[in-house]
Amino acid sequence: MATKEIVVGVSARHVHLSQADVETLFGPGHELEPLRDLSFKGVFAAKETVDVKTEKSTMTGLRVLGPVRKQSQIELARTDCFKLGIKPPVRESGDLAGSTPVTLIGPKGSIDLPEGAILAARHIHIGSDTVAEWGKKNGDYVDVRAGGERGVTFHKVLLRAGRPGGHTELHLDTDEANACMLNTGDKVEVILD
Amino acid sequence: MATKEIVVGVSARHVHLSQADVETLFGPGHELEPLRDLSFKGVFAAKETVDVKTEKSTMTGLRVLGPVRKQSQIELARTDCFKLGIKPPVRESGDLAGSTPVTLIGPKGSIDLPEGAILAARHIHIGSDTVAEWGKKNGDYVDVRAGGERGVTFHKVLLRAGRPGGHTELHLDTDEANACMLNTGDKVEVILD
Repeated sequence: MATKEIVVGVSARHVHLSQADVETLFGPGHELEPLRDLSFKGVFAAKETVDVKTEKSTMTGLRVLGPVRKQSQIELARTDCFKLGIKPPVRESGDLAGSTPVTLIGPKGSIDLPEGAILAARHIHIGSDTVAEWGKKNGDYVDVRAGGERGVTFHKVLLRAGRPGGHTELHLDTDEANACMLNTGDKVEVILD
Repeated sequence: MATKEIVVGVSARHVHLSQADVETLFGPGHELEPLRDLSFKGVFAAKETVDVKTEKSTMTGLRVLGPVRKQSQIELARTDCFKLGIKPPVRESGDLAGSTPVTLIGPKGSIDLPEGAILAARHIHIGSDTVAEWGKKNGDYVDVRAGGERGVTFHKVLLRAGRPGGHTELHLDTDEANACMLNTGDKVEVILD
């Protein structure tokens, strides 16, 4: 069995915002202020947080990630969604048509989003050169094995190939990581055949 | 590949109590009052709930399961444990030596438990006759495959064989179930070879 060892990044619930939504939530002309860089070039955790409100309840203090995007997107774990009383679809980032409506609340305003909440589909960020070395291509699926006393194999993990030399990292949400006791920086095995 | 289809039971965080601890938390002479029967004969969700407190935070309203046991036991998901700031071990039910201390709070009193909090090790309840039909025995491990768009294979799932004719059911916690979108009553495949 051919395998490749890669690193894990665990994504807690978070929010991406459009510039228009940033200004509605934080005030006219407001720009997101970087708090710390994330593992991907240019991506940062912002100082700003927002609350997410549904008919059932409110979840406070979700971290905003920058830079801003075309459309606001709320990435939740399914555990969060039971508390919020919503059933978002499992989606790739940016694929928001028909995703779940929520209300975002900031210090200066709130927005009723008609769509935007998703469960993030797990995926591997990988360079276009590395994916070719693996004998795979962008959009292919692989299995990923996490070891340990709560070991699991994740099936149907999408390869998302970016620029050559790009960082290789498996992105999981907190439910997926907690199911097998993984933390950011841990290693897992991609199964190539 | 030989497989067997079985049903899933998802366990949200809950508490088992000793009779002494029931009386400390709910008052002298108090007995747990059944709210509804669970899938295993004699086991019930009680009307009583307790709060679990750690140095970091408090989680309210954990359901108590009956009947009472020799020692109180708190079963949490790892997601809960990040909020509580504790790192309980993955354990079989009842194996509590050296497990994590927490404080339980009831309407009439509280208890600082020196041990008791665990992450429940996933397992399959199975009749002694069925496990023999499978060519397995009590204490063996199997892999279990959950399908769907977030399909996973759980490795190292313990077979806990009880009386002949006993119900066959995979027990997962909420993190494990949410990682692969399972609900109580869903079906999964046990892989026998």
